[in-house]
Amino acid sequence: MNRLGLYCSRCSAKLPFRYLDMKCGCGGTLLVDYDWERIHRTLTKEVIQTRYPSMWRYKELLPVSNPDCITTLGEGWTPLLRLKAWEQKLPIRQLWLKREEQNPTGSFKSRGFSVAVSLLKELGATKAAVPSNGNAAGALAAYAAYAGIAASVFIPLDCPPLIVDECPLYGAATYLVDGFIHDAAAIIEDGKQEQGWVNVGTLKEPGRVEGKKTMGFELAEQLNWTFPDVIIYPTGGGSGIIGMWKAYHELKAMGWIDGPLPRFVCVQEEGCQPIVDGLTVLGQAAGAGGLSGVAGETTTSGQASEGAVNEQTGRELAGVRAAGASPTGMRVPKPPDLELILSIIAESSGTAIALSKSQIADATRTLGSQGISSSPEGAATWAGLLALCDNGWLRPSDSVVLFNTSHAMKYTQLAHSSQLPIIRSYEDYRKLHLLP
Amino acid sequence: MNRLGLYCSRCSAKLPFRYLDMKCGCGGTLLVDYDWERIHRTLTKEVIQTRYPSMWRYKELLPVSNPDCITTLGEGWTPLLRLKAWEQKLPIRQLWLKREEQNPTGSFKSRGFSVAVSLLKELGATKAAVPSNGNAAGALAAYAAYAGIAASVFIPLDCPPLIVDECPLYGAATYLVDGFIHDAAAIIEDGKQEQGWVNVGTLKEPGRVEGKKTMGFELAEQLNWTFPDVIIYPTGGGSGIIGMWKAYHELKAMGWIDGPLPRFVCVQEEGCQPIVDGLTVLGQAAGAGGLSGVAGETTTSGQASEGAVNEQTGRELAGVRAAGASPTGMRVPKPPDLELILSIIAESSGTAIALSKSQIADATRTLGSQGISSSPEGAATWAGLLALCDNGWLRPSDSVVLFNTSHAMKYTQLAHSSQLPIIRSYEDYRKLHLLP
Ligand SMILES: Cc1ncc(COP(=O)(O)O)c(C=O)c1O
Ligand SMILES: Cc1ncc(COP(=O)(O)O)c(C=O)c1O
Ligand SMILES: [Zn+2]
Ligand SMILES: [Zn+2]
Repeated sequence: MNRLGLYCSRCSAKLPFRYLDMKCGCGGTLLVDYDWERIHRTLTKEVIQTRYPSMWRYKELLPVSNPDCITTLGEGWTPLLRLKAWEQKLPIRQLWLKREEQNPTGSFKSRGFSVAVSLLKELGATKAAVPSNGNAAGALAAYAAYAGIAASVFIPLDCPPLIVDECPLYGAATYLVDGFIHDAAAIIEDGKQEQGWVNVGTLKEPGRVEGKKTMGFELAEQLNWTFPDVIIYPTGGGSGIIGMWKAYHELKAMGWIDGPLPRFVCVQEEGCQPIVDGLTVLGQAAGAGGLSGVAGETTTSGQASEGAVNEQTGRELAGVRAAGASPTGMRVPKPPDLELILSIIAESSGTAIALSKSQIADATRTLGSQGISSSPEGAATWAGLLALCDNGWLRPSDSVVLFNTSHAMKYTQLAHSSQLPIIRSYEDYRKLHLLP
Repeated sequence: MNRLGLYCSRCSAKLPFRYLDMKCGCGGTLLVDYDWERIHRTLTKEVIQTRYPSMWRYKELLPVSNPDCITTLGEGWTPLLRLKAWEQKLPIRQLWLKREEQNPTGSFKSRGFSVAVSLLKELGATKAAVPSNGNAAGALAAYAAYAGIAASVFIPLDCPPLIVDECPLYGAATYLVDGFIHDAAAIIEDGKQEQGWVNVGTLKEPGRVEGKKTMGFELAEQLNWTFPDVIIYPTGGGSGIIGMWKAYHELKAMGWIDGPLPRFVCVQEEGCQPIVDGLTVLGQAAGAGGLSGVAGETTTSGQASEGAVNEQTGRELAGVRAAGASPTGMRVPKPPDLELILSIIAESSGTAIALSKSQIADATRTLGSQGISSSPEGAATWAGLLALCDNGWLRPSDSVVLFNTSHAMKYTQLAHSSQLPIIRSYEDYRKLHLLP
């Protein structure tokens, strides 16, 4: 078996592989460890390059041990589009867009759930649940349906209706939660024993990070086994960033790439910016609050940009301030392992930046007028790009990759078409189902 | 140059290549001809297999002569998903689904417009217009925006709002037409001289059929250079079927595949079924009117199924009957070259079948419950599959490929978000723009 076990991303402890409970005793997140020697013996870049363009071309580097359990709906190997016209206009060397909306469930979440559901099958699980801002819910619903696993999904009430409506179409038991994503998570934690749910929430099981890792593998392969200088990624729970950071280190371990870690930029939306706030506390933010105050000013990673330092202390307040932010995939007031995200930004000399609703709306129009439809999250990466060009954080020698993580249309404003139950707690869930 | 010229699909006349006017003097459609000898000298299957997974891996077999004009947004090489669970339940050997909704503009139309807009650039055109049930409009809008060409799109009033709304996002001048797609086409024909529009409507220029041809190339390559026994395709204007039929013959000409032509099945929606009606007139329909009357009955191609023969004579009435059909991509009451579609069905021993709204709705649910979201057109192919299993037209030895041509979400029912002008004629267009 290629997967060796788990290791702690904080204290480096090694543990045997398990399907559930990814928290180390030290509080760190457990990640999948591989038998590099064994993999080295058979797998080469050349072998990979002859394979079918799907994220499963990297199957030796994924944790599923029984190939019969692989649950695939056509995810991965999304296009990496070069935006040449804009390279001329911006003070950077190369600009690329990774079109993750071209995944089977219309978002990059397909990747994580392809692996997570494959592991659920391997485990023999029959019921799974997820708290989600929508895209993860739809992805669990689709992959679970294909695999014959019963899915329950818990989605904040104000999430985009089109994303929500997909879930019952895929046959998932779908609940709207009057609260944030962490409130939805609490319902699952409270009910999982009684209901027999496997919680496939962010960093609760090993599959989702591993699936997202393939975004990093593909990026490297599509760029002829190099990494770009900068990756700008719309960050919510953080597993995308964690996955790509892990991909980088694994490709290094395989000896397939060389060169420095790409600088990871987490973009968030003003009002729900725990990563930006966390960096501000550490004195590393490139500019919180949309950078509007620091445009033109040169900030380098590791230096706080004066005018933009936030008086409030990061995480405690994030939950409250989140109330003002859009219901997008970036709206995660309390990421499950903020420390890990901050340490990845520090290790990579990256940064985090919060954009305003109007910056995101402008970016949507700019991308649209060049033939690209973007979700708000994807548009936020464009807004981040402009802001980091303006303030000089990006350099003329940089190659930059943006991630359009979801399908534009999923965010259309309209009323929910379906009559879905609205709950606040697991107690509400029990009442709804008339449990004694 | 690999492209040699044009040939007539009806009378076989050969003509020099041109960018516009694809009608032969005999009334047939002109298609692009290639210099097979020249292509043979350099291109092999093995060369193709090493290339990046995009439809442009077949660039020698596409008509763009100046590589700098290639306009790509990440189209093609969509997944071909095997539906193993259903192979057990249905009396066929293999079942596949081609996920065309994973294209950059959310439908297979990306392919045709990638080539068509590349040719427009080569031609030096600055303005293009298209009549469309929506997906073609969005695709022209996106590719034209990327290429810096001004697009005008004319869409029947009752087309799905989400599909329509994409067009202004991409910067296209967008008009709702109070009429059918042929009424929209008439507006462009009436105005093209005055406005300087290149009409990129179905079979008006050489690029779109060539782009759709790549669906056939990919299918063959993904099935290890074989064709399936049966292709079930939601047919409107017919360029998808024409493209895949052309692909088959070209792969034969290259010596890359062997074996018989796949049997092409055109699925349509009851009420707008010019192809089904056309076959009925020829005595070849597998069952018009949704096959509900002929379930269980064995019909083979070339025999009319008694109970289902329609009293009305095909084409004339299609325009009228169309009023009852859904506003989907299959709603083309008057395909520009119906004869060619009928001849392809005859040559391939294929058939055509019309499905009811309720069959299509059932199919959407069945696909959803196995993790696949389908557009109405994609769902219609599933409904067609079931009907052709029921009536015995499909055989236990058949491998069958269905096409999910568009993104499910595009068809969400809601009101138009934008205030778009509604017109009936080019005269209305002139009034709207206050032309003297
Ligand atoms: C479209 C979209 N983009 C970005 C994110 C954030 O991703 P991550 O959890 O990897 O930080 C999400 C998460 O819900 C999302 O749905
Ligand atoms: C989603 C969809 N499917 C099928 C069709 C019909 O395609 P064709 O013109 O190739 O017959 C269309 C055309 O508008 C469409 O939009
Ligand atoms: Zn630890
Ligand atoms: Zn002719």
